[in-house]
Order: sequence, then C-alpha cells, then structure tokens
Amino acid sequence: MKFITIGELLMRLSPPDYEKIRTTSSYVVNFGGAEANVAVSLANLGVDTTVFTVLPDNDIGRSAVRSLKANDVHTSPIIFGGERMGVYFLEEGIGVRSSKVIYDRKHSAFAEYDYTTVDFKALLEGYDWLHLSGITPALSNSCQILIEAAIYAARQLGMTISFDCNYRSMLWSFDEARDIISRYLPYVDVLIGIEPLHLQDENGHDLKDGMSMQPDYEEQDRIFQAMADRYHFKAIARHVRYTHSSSENSLKAYLYYNGQTYESKLFRFQILDRVGGGDAFSSGLIYALMNNYKPRDVVNFAVASSVMKHSIHGDTNITDVESIQRLMNQSFDVQR
Amino acid sequence: MKFITIGELLMRLSPPDYEKIRTTSSYVVNFGGAEANVAVSLANLGVDTTVFTVLPDNDIGRSAVRSLKANDVHTSPIIFGGERMGVYFLEEGIGVRSSKVIYDRKHSAFAEYDYTTVDFKALLEGYDWLHLSGITPALSNSCQILIEAAIYAARQLGMTISFDCNYRSMLWSFDEARDIISRYLPYVDVLIGIEPLHLQDENGHDLKDGMSMQPDYEEQDRIFQAMADRYHFKAIARHVRYTHSSSENSLKAYLYYNGQTYESKLFRFQILDRVGGGDAFSSGLIYALMNNYKPRDVVNFAVASSVMKHSIHGDTNITDVESIQRLMNQSFDVQR
Amino acid sequence: MKFITIGELLMRLSPPDYEKIRTTSSYVVNFGGAEANVAVSLANLGVDTTVFTVLPDNDIGRSAVRSLKANDVHTSPIIFGGERMGVYFLEEGIGVRSSKVIYDRKHSAFAEYDYTTVDFKALLEGYDWLHLSGITPALSNSCQILIEAAIYAARQLGMTISFDCNYRSMLWSFDEARDIISRYLPYVDVLIGIEPLHLQDENGHDLKDGMSMQPDYEEQDRIFQAMADRYHFKAIARHVRYTHSSSENSLKAYLYYNGQTYESKLFRFQILDRVGGGDAFSSGLIYALMNNYKPRDVVNFAVASSVMKHSIHGDTNITDVESIQRLMNQSFDVQR
Amino acid sequence: MKFITIGELLMRLSPPDYEKIRTTSSYVVNFGGAEANVAVSLANLGVDTTVFTVLPDNDIGRSAVRSLKANDVHTSPIIFGGERMGVYFLEEGIGVRSSKVIYDRKHSAFAEYDYTTVDFKALLEGYDWLHLSGITPALSNSCQILIEAAIYAARQLGMTISFDCNYRSMLWSFDEARDIISRYLPYVDVLIGIEPLHLQDENGHDLKDGMSMQPDYEEQDRIFQAMADRYHFKAIARHVRYTHSSSENSLKAYLYYNGQTYESKLFRFQILDRVGGGDAFSSGLIYALMNNYKPRDVVNFAVASSVMKHSIHGDTNITDVESIQRLMNQSFDVQR
Amino acid sequence: MKFITIGELLMRLSPPDYEKIRTTSSYVVNFGGAEANVAVSLANLGVDTTVFTVLPDNDIGRSAVRSLKANDVHTSPIIFGGERMGVYFLEEGIGVRSSKVIYDRKHSAFAEYDYTTVDFKALLEGYDWLHLSGITPALSNSCQILIEAAIYAARQLGMTISFDCNYRSMLWSFDEARDIISRYLPYVDVLIGIEPLHLQDENGHDLKDGMSMQPDYEEQDRIFQAMADRYHFKAIARHVRYTHSSSENSLKAYLYYNGQTYESKLFRFQILDRVGGGDAFSSGLIYALMNNYKPRDVVNFAVASSVMKHSIHGDTNITDVESIQRLMNQSFDVQR
Amino acid sequence: MKFITIGELLMRLSPPDYEKIRTTSSYVVNFGGAEANVAVSLANLGVDTTVFTVLPDNDIGRSAVRSLKANDVHTSPIIFGGERMGVYFLEEGIGVRSSKVIYDRKHSAFAEYDYTTVDFKALLEGYDWLHLSGITPALSNSCQILIEAAIYAARQLGMTISFDCNYRSMLWSFDEARDIISRYLPYVDVLIGIEPLHLQDENGHDLKDGMSMQPDYEEQDRIFQAMADRYHFKAIARHVRYTHSSSENSLKAYLYYNGQTYESKLFRFQILDRVGGGDAFSSGLIYALMNNYKPRDVVNFAVASSVMKHSIHGDTNITDVESIQRLMNQSFDVQR
Repeated sequence: MKFITIGELLMRLSPPDYEKIRTTSSYVVNFGGAEANVAVSLANLGVDTTVFTVLPDNDIGRSAVRSLKANDVHTSPIIFGGERMGVYFLEEGIGVRSSKVIYDRKHSAFAEYDYTTVDFKALLEGYDWLHLSGITPALSNSCQILIEAAIYAARQLGMTISFDCNYRSMLWSFDEARDIISRYLPYVDVLIGIEPLHLQDENGHDLKDGMSMQPDYEEQDRIFQAMADRYHFKAIARHVRYTHSSSENSLKAYLYYNGQTYESKLFRFQILDRVGGGDAFSSGLIYALMNNYKPRDVVNFAVASSVMKHSIHGDTNITDVESIQRLMNQSFDVQR
Repeated sequence: MKFITIGELLMRLSPPDYEKIRTTSSYVVNFGGAEANVAVSLANLGVDTTVFTVLPDNDIGRSAVRSLKANDVHTSPIIFGGERMGVYFLEEGIGVRSSKVIYDRKHSAFAEYDYTTVDFKALLEGYDWLHLSGITPALSNSCQILIEAAIYAARQLGMTISFDCNYRSMLWSFDEARDIISRYLPYVDVLIGIEPLHLQDENGHDLKDGMSMQPDYEEQDRIFQAMADRYHFKAIARHVRYTHSSSENSLKAYLYYNGQTYESKLFRFQILDRVGGGDAFSSGLIYALMNNYKPRDVVNFAVASSVMKHSIHGDTNITDVESIQRLMNQSFDVQR
Repeated sequence: MKFITIGELLMRLSPPDYEKIRTTSSYVVNFGGAEANVAVSLANLGVDTTVFTVLPDNDIGRSAVRSLKANDVHTSPIIFGGERMGVYFLEEGIGVRSSKVIYDRKHSAFAEYDYTTVDFKALLEGYDWLHLSGITPALSNSCQILIEAAIYAARQLGMTISFDCNYRSMLWSFDEARDIISRYLPYVDVLIGIEPLHLQDENGHDLKDGMSMQPDYEEQDRIFQAMADRYHFKAIARHVRYTHSSSENSLKAYLYYNGQTYESKLFRFQILDRVGGGDAFSSGLIYALMNNYKPRDVVNFAVASSVMKHSIHGDTNITDVESIQRLMNQSFDVQR
Repeated sequence: MKFITIGELLMRLSPPDYEKIRTTSSYVVNFGGAEANVAVSLANLGVDTTVFTVLPDNDIGRSAVRSLKANDVHTSPIIFGGERMGVYFLEEGIGVRSSKVIYDRKHSAFAEYDYTTVDFKALLEGYDWLHLSGITPALSNSCQILIEAAIYAARQLGMTISFDCNYRSMLWSFDEARDIISRYLPYVDVLIGIEPLHLQDENGHDLKDGMSMQPDYEEQDRIFQAMADRYHFKAIARHVRYTHSSSENSLKAYLYYNGQTYESKLFRFQILDRVGGGDAFSSGLIYALMNNYKPRDVVNFAVASSVMKHSIHGDTNITDVESIQRLMNQSFDVQR
Repeated sequence: MKFITIGELLMRLSPPDYEKIRTTSSYVVNFGGAEANVAVSLANLGVDTTVFTVLPDNDIGRSAVRSLKANDVHTSPIIFGGERMGVYFLEEGIGVRSSKVIYDRKHSAFAEYDYTTVDFKALLEGYDWLHLSGITPALSNSCQILIEAAIYAARQLGMTISFDCNYRSMLWSFDEARDIISRYLPYVDVLIGIEPLHLQDENGHDLKDGMSMQPDYEEQDRIFQAMADRYHFKAIARHVRYTHSSSENSLKAYLYYNGQTYESKLFRFQILDRVGGGDAFSSGLIYALMNNYKPRDVVNFAVASSVMKHSIHGDTNITDVESIQRLMNQSFDVQR
Repeated sequence: MKFITIGELLMRLSPPDYEKIRTTSSYVVNFGGAEANVAVSLANLGVDTTVFTVLPDNDIGRSAVRSLKANDVHTSPIIFGGERMGVYFLEEGIGVRSSKVIYDRKHSAFAEYDYTTVDFKALLEGYDWLHLSGITPALSNSCQILIEAAIYAARQLGMTISFDCNYRSMLWSFDEARDIISRYLPYVDVLIGIEPLHLQDENGHDLKDGMSMQPDYEEQDRIFQAMADRYHFKAIARHVRYTHSSSENSLKAYLYYNGQTYESKLFRFQILDRVGGGDAFSSGLIYALMNNYKPRDVVNFAVASSVMKHSIHGDTNITDVESIQRLMNQSFDVQR
C-alpha cells in the first residue's frame, strides 16, 4: 500500500539537556509536523510513504527535506516557494517542571500558499491511503481549501482517508474547529481523536460534552457507538494519557472497529522526548490497519508505538516493527 | 519592597552529565552562594533585589557579576578587590551514587575583606528586607564583624531581617556555630532552619538535642513554640527532606507563624540539580511573606519553590510565580 | 555622557564549528542588531548605555533582554508586546567558502509596533547621545515614523545624533533608501558610512556614483568634503574592507573631522566571527569622540575596535579600552 | 596480593545521550572487556593489578593502554602486534527501549595471536590470583590454547584461579561452550556464574536445566551444593537481575562458601550505564575474598559493587571501597 | 544524464577539534568512500545519481544509507549482507602536524561479496555514466571480478566510463596495481589521475617514471599525449597539490581534452577538512563534462570544486554549482 | 637513562573554542606545570620519567595523577596532603586577540609543604637526570629549601642537572629572582633560558642587560661564552620567539655546546595551543642530549619539538620522536 500525507513541517528548536529557553546558549534542531511525523514513522516501519508540503526555497527548507529523505520518505511532490518555515521553541520539562512551547509559525510558506493552483487528483493518483490532520485547516483559509480539495480528490480515487483531529487551542477556537472539522467527517474512514466534532442528540446537546478526559470502557464505548452511527467511520481510535510527571506517563487506548470497542493494555513509562507521542500512535494504528492486524492487536500496537516514541529523541518514531511488537507483548506498568 | 542580601559568591565547577571529577575533561561553570541564590530566585519572581559581596577585580569576578545582572539582580554595592574567588567542585550524584563536593574556598576576597571600612547604614539605606545566612560568620572573624554590623544597621533602619542558619560542618564546629549564631537571633524576624542555636531548658539541656531529622507535627510544633518563646521570631520555617536516592527525594516543610505551626504538603520528585534546594525554599518563603500569603500558602509556596528548583540546572530557581503556584496546587506524590 | 540607541534586536542562529545550515543538528544562539551591538560594545568600554526596542512578551524576548543586562546595558524603556522576534540563520564562512545568511525577520514586534503611542521626548530625556541606523526605516512605515520622531525629539533636547547608514539591499531598494535616509541627514552630527544618500552636483549627477569601494585618500577626501559642505556633519567616518578570504580580511578607515580627512592604519587579521564588525567600528568611533581623542586616534581606535571584534564570538565587542588601545598601537599587517 | 587477568580489550563506541546508532553523528569511546573491567575496578579499590592482552601496535592500541594506566593497572606484559582491535557499537536503552549491541570483533589481534610462543609460567610468576572468563575460549582455537596454558601454569604456581563463565551466545553455541568450559572447572577455585557447565545426574540429565533465571534460595542452594560436590570449588557466586525497564533494575546475589549458601540484600536502582555490571560483581567478590570478609559481607559487597557500577559511565567501577560499603549498608529498594 | 558508481563505503571516525586518537574521548562519524563521495557531490550539484555497494544488514549499514539518501543519492541497488563495514580512524592534522589515518577495513561486506551472483547488465541498464576507482580492485579478487564485469556491461550498454586511479599503497604494491589497472584502461573514457599504469616506450621504460609530482605544463602535456595515443582516452585529468602546511595547500589541475592540454588556475586556500579533496575534483570534472563546459572551464570548475571541498566538514562536497562557479572566477592566491 | 623532575602541578581551566572567561559556560581541564610538562613530553618520547610533587589528597589531586600515569610517567614518590591544588584560568587568544591568564595558585599543597621532612638523597637515588625550574623557588621559602636540597643531593649522586630559568614576573621581582637563581647556577649542567641571572663585568654591569629579545648570532654567542666562562655549563639553550599574531609565531633557538654556539632553523607555524611551548623545547633538548645527537641536531630537534607542541591541545607534547624528526627536516617558513 502506498501512503501519502499532507501537512505543514515545522522547525523545532529545543535547548539541550533540559536547559531553559531563557538561559540556553544553543538549540538542538529537529524537523517535524503532525502529518510528517506519521510519514517518517511509517517509513521506518517499511511502508512506502510520501509527504506533500510547501517549504521555502532555501537551506532551511532543504534541511527539512533532507531529514525526510534520510528516513526514506518520498518528497517529490513538495513545492518550494513562499516566505518562511514555521518554527517552535520547545523547553522540555523534567520531573515536576512542565514542558513549554513558544510558537512562531505564522506567515509560513505552507499556510500562505495558493492551493487552487494544485491539481490534487494528479497529486494523489497512485496512492492508497491519505492522512490528514485538524491542524491544517486551522492555519489559514487557503489551507481549508487544500483540505477540502484533497478529501474530494481522495474520495474520487477511492483512497482510504485517516484524519487526526489534533485540536490546537492556540490556533483557533473550539467552536470554529468543531464546525469546520465536522464538515470533513462524512468522508473520513479512520478517525483519530474524538474532539472537536459535532455529535448532538435530538435536543442539540453534544453527547461528548462533559465526557471524562480519561473515560472508562463503558463511557468510551457509548460515545464511539454514537459517533459511528452518525458518521459511519470504519475505525475510531484515541489514546488516554495519565501524566504522573513530566518524566513519567501512562498510556492506554480505545479502538472502535466493526461495531465493537476494544481497550488496550496500560503502559507506564519513562519519557525521554514527549513530542510526537500522538503521531506515533497514529502511525502505529495505520500500520496495523494496513497489515490487517486483529482489532485487539491494532490497538495494542498503536499504543506501544506511541509508548516507544517517548524513549526516542526528536518528533518521530525511528524504530522497527519488531521492537514495537516486543514492547506490546510486555506490560511495564505491571512489572513495577 | 526592596530586598538586599550579603554573602559570598562561589564558582561552582561540575563535570557534565554525571561524569566523575577523577575522569572528567571539562567542567560546567555556575555562580552561586546561599545568599545570592536567594537573591537571583527572588529577582526571577519579580522582586527588586540587590546583592552586596566582595569579588576579585578580574574576569572571574566580572563573570560572577554578569550572571547576577542577567538575572536582574542589582550589583551596584559590590566591592572589587582581594585575592581570589572561592571555588567548589561538585560531582553530581545519580541513583545510588551520592553527590560529592570538594571545597577550595579559603583565602577568598569576601572572607578576607576588612569590613570595618564599610558604612553599613549607608549601604542598607532604602531597603526593606535584609537576608543573611549562617555561612558568612563561619568564614572568618572579619565576616563575623560584617554580620554584626549589618544586623545592627538593619535594626536601626527598621528593616525585616531573615536568617538562614545553614550550618556547614566543614567550616566550623557545631558548638562554635551554636554560640555565635545564637547571638544574632534576638534581632532576627524570620528564622530559616533550626540548627545550630541554643534552646536550653532550665536544666541546661538543649530542647532540640535528640530531635528527629524528620519530626512529626507535634514534635516540630513543640520546638517551634519554645523557640518563639525564647527569641520572639515573627516566623520560623524549615523543610524536611527524605532521600530515596540521589535522583529522587521528597520534601515537606513546617512554618511557625503568629503562634501557630503549619505543615505543608509532601512532594516526591525527580532531581535534575540538587544544589540550591534550601535557598529556593528561603526565596519562596520570603516572596510569600512579602506578598502576605496566608500561612498555609506561605509554607506550601516555599516548599513548591524548593521542589521546582530541583528540576532546574544551576544553583538558582530561574522560574516564575505562576509555575510555582501551579506546582503547589498539585501533589506529585499522590499522583504516583 | 549617557548613550541611548533605538533599533531592532534579532536572534542569530548559527551552526557550530563551520557546519552548514543544510546539515547542522544544532544552532548556537546570539542576540544582536546593529544598534544594540553598538550599545553592548560601548557598555563594555564603560559607557552608560540604554537600548530602546520592542520585544515579544515571552521567554525569547526575555532571553534577549538577559543578554543586554549581562553586558551592563540598561533596558528599562524596552516595550514587551507584539508577535515575534526576528531571526536570522548564519552559516559562517571559512577560507574560500563564503558566509551565508537567511533572514526570517518580517512581522517582528519591533517592525509592527505603533510608535505614535510613544512619547519620544520623555523617552530620550536625560541622555546625551542618540544612535540610529539605516536598517530601522527599512523595516516598515511605522519604523520610519519612529526614526523621524526620535530625531525630532533628540534635536529638541540638544542631543548628539549619530547615524550608521547600514544599507541592506534585502530590505529595500537603493533608490528608496537614498530618498528616505537623505531626509534625516540634516539632523545628523556623526555620519557612519556614506551610502545611500543624495549628493548631486549641479547636473543632478550623484558625486558618489562610480566611486571605488576601496577609495584612496584623495578620492575619499573629495567626497567627504562635498558631503560636509552639503549636510554640515560634525564627523563622517567609514571603514574600507579588503576580503582576502572568509578567514582573513584587512581593514582601514577614513574620518572627516573639523574640515580635514584622516586615514587610519591598515590592519590585516584573522577572522573568528565576522558579524558586527561594522557596529564595533561605530562603537569605537563613538567612544573615541565622547572621550575627545585626537582625530587620528579616533580613526585608529575605531578601526582597531572593529578589528578586535573579528576575534570574538557573537555580534558584539566584549572587550575593554586597554585591549583596543594595545592593538591600535600595533600593526599586524606590517608584522607579517 | 597481586592480581593478574588475561583477556581481550574491546573499543566501545556508543552514541551520546541515548541517540540511536542509525542517526548519531558521534560516538563516545570507552575501552573495556570482561577481564580488564575486573582489573580496572580492583585497581580503583587499591589492589595491585595487571592485565595481559594483545593489542595492535598503533594509536588505537595505545589509547586502550592509556585508559588502563590512568586507572593504575600495570600493563607491562601486554604484547603489541596483530591486525586490529575488536569494536562494539552500543546503543544505550532507556525506559521501555532496550539497549542494542552490534559486535565487530572478529579478526582481532588478541583472537589471532599464536599463544604457543608465550611462556605463561614466566608471565604469571609472582602473582597470587589469576582471573579468566568464558569469553576468551569462545574467540578462537588459539585462545583456547591460551586458557589451558594459563590455567596449567597458574596451578603449578599455586595461584588462586577465578573464572567468570560469561556465556555469549553470539560467539558460540551453548553446547560447545558447555563442553569446553566444563573442562576448566576442576582447576577453578572461585566460580562466577553457573552456566554453561556440565552437572549431570546419574541419568545424564543436567541438574541445572530448567532452573529458574531468578531462583529462590532453596533452588539455588541445591544447585550450588551439587556443583561443589562435583567440582570442589572454594566459592561459587552469581547475581540475579530483575529488569523493570532499561532504566531500572534490581539485583541480588547468591554465594556458596565453605559448604553454605548465602543470599544478599536486594537492591533496586536507577541505571546510568548498564555495561560492566557483571564484571563489577566479580571485582567486588574478588576484593572481598582477598580481604577475608565474612561470607555474608562478601556477597553483599559484591552485589553493592555491581549496583554502584550502574551509576557510573563506562565499563568499569571507578569508585572506592568506602562508597561501596556505604551503599551495601543501605537498601534503596526498601526506602522507596 | 543518469550517473551510477560502484564502490565501498567506509565509516570514518575522527576525534573532534584536532584531538589526537591517543587521547580523544569521542569520535565524529562520517560515511565516505572514494566513489560514494563523487556520487554525493554530484547529487548536491543536481545530477541524478545512484550508488551500488554492499553493506552489513545492521544499523551501521543503515546509517550509511541514511547519509546517502539525505543527500539525494539513490540507493535502491544496494545489497545488504556480509560481515562488517570497513572503518578508518582519522586524526586531522593542523599547522605543522600531519594528518594520520589508521585503517580497519579488511573483511568488509563489500570486499568479500561474491559478485558472480550479480547481473551487472541489469544493474546498469538505464544509466549513462559509470564511475569506478582503483581502490576497488585493490580490495579482493572478488572485487576485481566486480570491476571487470561492470566495465564489460557498461561497454555493452554504451555508457561513459570514468576511472579514478586512486592508488593506495597500504592496499597493494605499485607493480600489482599497475598491472591490474592498466588492463581496464582501453575501456575507460575519462581517466582521473595518471598512476599507476603502464606507458612504456619501445625500450620498455615507463615514460611516467621519474616524472615530477608537480610537473610543469610541458612535462604534463607530453605524458598526456603519450597516454592518449596509447589508450585513446576522451579526457585525462589530474590535480597537483602543494602542501604548505596541514592547514594550507595550493591546488591546480591539468586536463587533456580533444588533443590538447589545459592548465587551471592555481588556488591557495585554508583547510577545514582535507578528506575527499580528490573525489570533489572528480565530481567537478564529471559535472562539467556532462554539462559540456568548455575545456578551460572544465578544468577550472574541477579544481574549484576540489578547493571548495577543503572548506566543508566530512568527505563530500555539500555545496552547489553557483558557489563553485563564484569561486572559480576568483583567485585567492593572487588576492593574498 | 632515568629522568626525574620536581615541581608544582596546576589545574588549567580554559574556555572552549576561544570563548572568553567573562562569558564562558564551561571550562576544559588540563593538568600541567613547567616541570611535569617536560616529564610527560619525555615519557611520550620513550624516556623513563618520574615526577615528584605534592598534591591534595582528594579527587582533584587524583585526576592530576591519572593524567601523568596515562602518559606513562611514574608517580610513586608523589606525596598526598595539604590544602589545595593551584589553578589557572587561560583565555586562549586568536588572531589579534591576546591570550589572558588569571592565576589562582597561592596556598597550594606544593608551595606550603615542609620539605625538611623529605630525604632527597633517597628520593633521587637511581635516577640519572634531574630537571628543575625557576618557578619553584618563586613559590615559597619552603620551595627554595626544596630546590637547594634537591640540587645538593643530585650533585652527591652524580646526576646531570638541567635548569629552566622560567622567570615569572607575577611571582617575584626580577632582582629577587636573579639573586636566588644565580646561587644555583654553579651546580647546573644544562641551562635553559638566560634570565634572570647575574653576569656582571668588572664594573658591575650585567652583560645581558640591554640585550635584544631576539638577538642575532653574534650577540647571542658573546653572551653564551661569557656565561659559560662564569658558570661552566655543559650546555646552554634558549629559543627566540617572533609573535606575528596569537595564531602565528616563528621560533628558532640557540645552543651553546662544548665551546661553540649553534643556531637552529627558523620555523613559522600556526598555533592551536600556545601553552607549554617552552617546556616542549626543554624536553626536546633533554631528549636529544640524552641520545647524544650532534649539536646542530640537538638544537633543531629541540625547536621542532617546541613547534610541534603548538599544534597539540593541552600543555604537553603528546607526540613521538619520528614526528618531530620529520618536522625538523622541513622548514615551513621557507615553504610559504
């Protein structure tokens, strides 16, 4: 199966060794972005993957492409042009100290590109799976056009569409996000994350409102069933995170598949690099679905993929299928 | 309120990344000192702070001053002169391995300065709060003169005086420290730490002798009340440390205030840098008292300030009020 | 004398040890900006200096301020607000390889601030010398308003005004720059650099057009005299650079002062860090003029200040008067 | 007592700071080897130690020798010659991520040397204790000759012989190892580790087969007694490891001595560097036996020595007797 | 035009910052190899390039492939298998201190592969240019078979063949190299370097014997003409190096093309990284020939490409056409 | 021949990569000292060498010893005790910027030791050559006693004594140094450096006063002859330095031997690390004299040894005889 994703790449600048932004004298550079992270992780698992994005035509843009290529991601459709690449500064938390992010991503080449000039049908021709995220429509009107055109073309081509909601409150309001993202849902096959989207009952109350951040199986199953009834997803997946400290979290996940809800194992683990944990969940999920794992294995592989990512520097899961499988068959939480 | 403190600055040299002193090929440099650490931490919380000290008139002394200025600490009264700046080598412990310190602080410019030439009343004029510590009188006779002159002038100016006992067994004997420090206590408003000082009952037995290092509320309350009876402190505060390993400690604190003893929450946490934990307790305490926090908030803010420091490189608490408040409203120990 | 300057600060990100932007895995961070560089260098020479700028109200902005404060520059008038801080990526050249700069400075807090809300007369009150540069008006209309208001206020307060032309072709066209900058010249006392500005003869030909980049004394003197006739500068100074390679340059300078043109020694020297060489020339010039050096010493001190800067990491001349004077009395070019 | 050991040194190359081999841009270099690690650790405890090995006659070989000498290990018998030094690449695990090793040790100078040219009786003359390991005979036929000759000579000289089984499945099969190593056992005084060696009952079943990796006291005692009956060891020791994660393990140990089996405390601890943990157990054991510790102290000192090593970078236990003793009198597992 | 090359990749390990191998505590890792260096450099100039090699199927082999892919080199034909990757340790010289290399490349996967199993015609199908070097046949008999099969297939496919003699005295004797390499020459179109190959006159004296290492135009022209007469090369190129110190060299080059000999400019330049200078000459030459530069431009572009490489870390010329052209139009030697 | 030297070791702390002391965040550590540098360099040339010194009994002292042992220097006579180890901070110059040293060496264990308790005859027994320097008597009265006792014992044992004058103006006055050092001269065989020592003519004028720092052969010969007449040295040697910049120097040397004065080649060279250049001259001289080189080779080997040192990090000449000989047979100055 051939996988393609569309999204913005960001340059991540983080002080080394838990230094603070205020006092650091250097930054470690990584390139990431929700969708590209999924692509890089899938490529490391052996999937044929491609990224479409827009990058400035300079050495910064080139170095972002180098990092994709080094990971075996195809980059041929990438457009070079525009003003700048978005940047974010990440101060990594440790123990009781929280991580801190300063975004400087406005006016990026990706956000400001005129996508009406792109022939998405030609672009997506020959691929089997399209992955998108809710970050893109939050960036600009132009990016909303991009998402709609991509979904439309993918549907025509009969591709599988996965969509990671990825709500970012710094980019847009919850209500605006809910209105826009909900529009895409009828065309989505695999939904990742369950917010923000409309799921009103007959009284106009949203069924998800007031739901626990860490729901139990019954609560999650009820919502999944209602979502599937409304939008006819092939699969819905979400992970649940328990933050013991900035250096130690637990993760588990729920998967709706073919009318049934599955709950994964719970993993408790140490954190080396927190960024990209959700994207590694998505890549594990997509990999397992592509390879027709049994539902219980899908959800366990996805969560193990995310857990593994937390032990690897950078935004992406530079690992292999065997390592994730070995982890998914253990349970570090129990071992303590 | 304007805060001033007097004390020695030391150059701290520590091998990077848990290397050992015996084998390291480089040292990370930080500047600290019990009193300056309090000043830097307070300045980062937004307080107007000044440090008085003596430094050699060379680039080593200048770099110490740079580190204070970068943190918004005023340095105008600092005297340049004398022979050298004290140094200490710190091998940071990890897990079962303990930290190790080698001091090379004798003959310092601060310890050997002739303070009879300083007009402390002029120096302290215009400040509201003077912070001192029990390290200074341990350094030299000249430094004992300094402390006495500073306390005398501060009293005349109606300043609040806080004093952190900070007993260091490598500098002087317990008995010598007890005799000298006890002399200052009648002039102290806020006492931090409870040793070494005289608190004899009618039989000449010191009430604190034999006290547990980790007393329960009743034991601590009894001593606090006796100390307050004897010396009429406005507040007494101390933290209690539980060392699970070099990488994990727990902290709580007790505060006597206005006749009553308060116990803080207990925090269990991971350690990035152990040095300056006590000074961050002092700075949190002083900040909370300056801002008229309720007693229970004072003791919780002080201990959260100390806990936060353990997650930050260097001797000082480069953080902000909001971060400490967020931490003080959690309890990481419970969350495990 | 009290010195103040107004201008934008930039975050400089440069790969360590001559790595290339395309392949680097980390960046060294420095804070600079033509005007701030002059301020930091002057402060290191012992002058009372202040910077006025606008910075985003986050840890990036705070770290820029830390770097000024550490160097003894006063920062009290700085306004915090706006969207972002400009960034530039610097790939340092070596030997036959040229340096490379990628700017990402648009939409900065400084460029987009509404300066009609600032009372420049109140801001500049109490200072003796105002330094500006031709970069500021190139940034935005708002910044042109800032320059005009600052010049107007400075004149009213009887301040000395120095202006470094600092033409940047990536920010605006030569003709636009010439029109705008020439408007400021009647109010300038000390002009640094001689382009772009109008100096037409009766036929409308600009006298400077076609002038050599490395003029001899006669050519330079003729232009200086014509400029002084037209604009009545107290002093005009410019340096002349000979680029033997990215690692070795020569510098000399010309100074017009009181009707006469002076030529400095020529220094040939090795380069550790090329950025800020011109600003170090300005700071040396201003220092020497403030201290009433003889004209020949002014020009030699200014060029030695610039030469010294090339041997120091970062954008600024962290050195002292004695070191520059020692250098100005040598001639490394001759010694080879 | 004078200690000598014989074995191969390897160059260890490990990416810094938990980087992965696939993506690292540098390697930290350490020199180790099961036997040399024991020697370095013993030398740091104050024992007179010597290493015999073969190294290539180039700067790589010289740097290995430098690392021994810096640690006070005598290197005079070392032979320089042959083709290359073995290398291994170590990717250090963290949290849920396992460590990974890539060996490149074939064709080494040590493995390919012709030991029939060495006079082992002359070599070992004057030493009291010879330490060998099961890695050496796995390397080559020539190395098997070496082991036999060394054991033979040591016996003639009346030396104490310790042997660490150290089975490495990447070097030879279990059955081959069992056959060869069992041949040496009648000459061994102190056996470390209990596999692979023959211990058949009358039916030809090996009594150790099916034994738990983490046996309880009774199970271990039964095997120790049978081994001692069969081979007449003076002492047998083994440690038992519980792997909670790549960053946290527990260790305890069993010691057979003079007809009785002793069980150590159990230590739970954080890991900085996992390599050489077994060798540090051996060195602690040998030190304690050399110094006639009581059996319970022997086994506790040995396991504390191993635990301490896990908190020190590199393959060896660069620490001192006092630090190990302090640790052996605590129990971090209980303290949690 | 599509370019392919065949050769061994090596892992280069060099101490950072001019440390010595004997004392370094870390190594910087780069991947190179004479032929791969040409490929990477060409890919950076925009040429479609592919490398065929054999690498071990582990993370070391994978990281070598990552470095090729990041540079846009196609790697699809690479075979994974075999024992190990060759390594060399490089101590970089500076000033009067010479560089030092320790090879550990024997028994490599590439050298030991059985190339009779490879269908070279299928492998080379679709490419226009094949580049080989004299290092490959020096590695093993198997590699000599590889070279012969590759040349044979390339001839049949009508490809252009370039061959860089690249004599390495540590791998084989001059006479053996001369006999073997001379066999390939009738099939070579573009020869790089002129030793070791047979060029006897009627008396059996080799015309090149006794030739100066730094010949003048006449001497070089005479040899070139004789070589062209004998072997009918389309082009012959060689560079001439003048070693002023380890940090400063001069380079020029000679090119025979279409019956005429051309001499390049002479460049004198500072050295950041000496390795791969010859390979960058080859890549510049091939690029210029592919793009039909005029002969004088070919030789100047080739030598400027080599000069530029000396200012870039690593084995390859990570630069662009424009930068080389800008350099080729200067002459740093004259500018001094 | 067995070599021993006596002197103080210092810890050198230098900012990495030409950072300034004022702004550095770390220090590279090296151990040196004029006499120990000679020992380490000689040991690297293969001479049996021993150092006698006094070091504090802590990990700082131990790490100094480790650095000696790693270089094959014997350390058995070293005494552990006393207060501290001297430190110096070195800011390495580059180009036009000078190096800067801040000493913090007072109150050292070596300077304050009571040498009347040492039996120098027992200490020196079995050695052939004793090397001392003029730094030691400058440190304390106790150290003057040490020098006198050592010279006395060495004479009785018939050892060769070399003495490097090494005048340090920060330690004592020229006149005091001249008086004290001159007392030792009658017992010195090999004198290195010619100041400060008494060499009055009949009128009481010192013949060396007014001598050029860079004398020509005639001037130097005249002084050498007068010195030899007066003090009967076996050999006198000095090097002459020409400082073109902090990064480029030239060196040559003069040697008086057996009634005749020899002048070495002149080397011009780039500087990586300037410290220990004089000590490397001494070690080269002593090596060549020990090995009975011809006088012209002695002086050339000594100066080449010093030149080589300037290309090696740290205080000592970690190189080999062959490398120095290769250099001594070139002349880099001519090659430019």
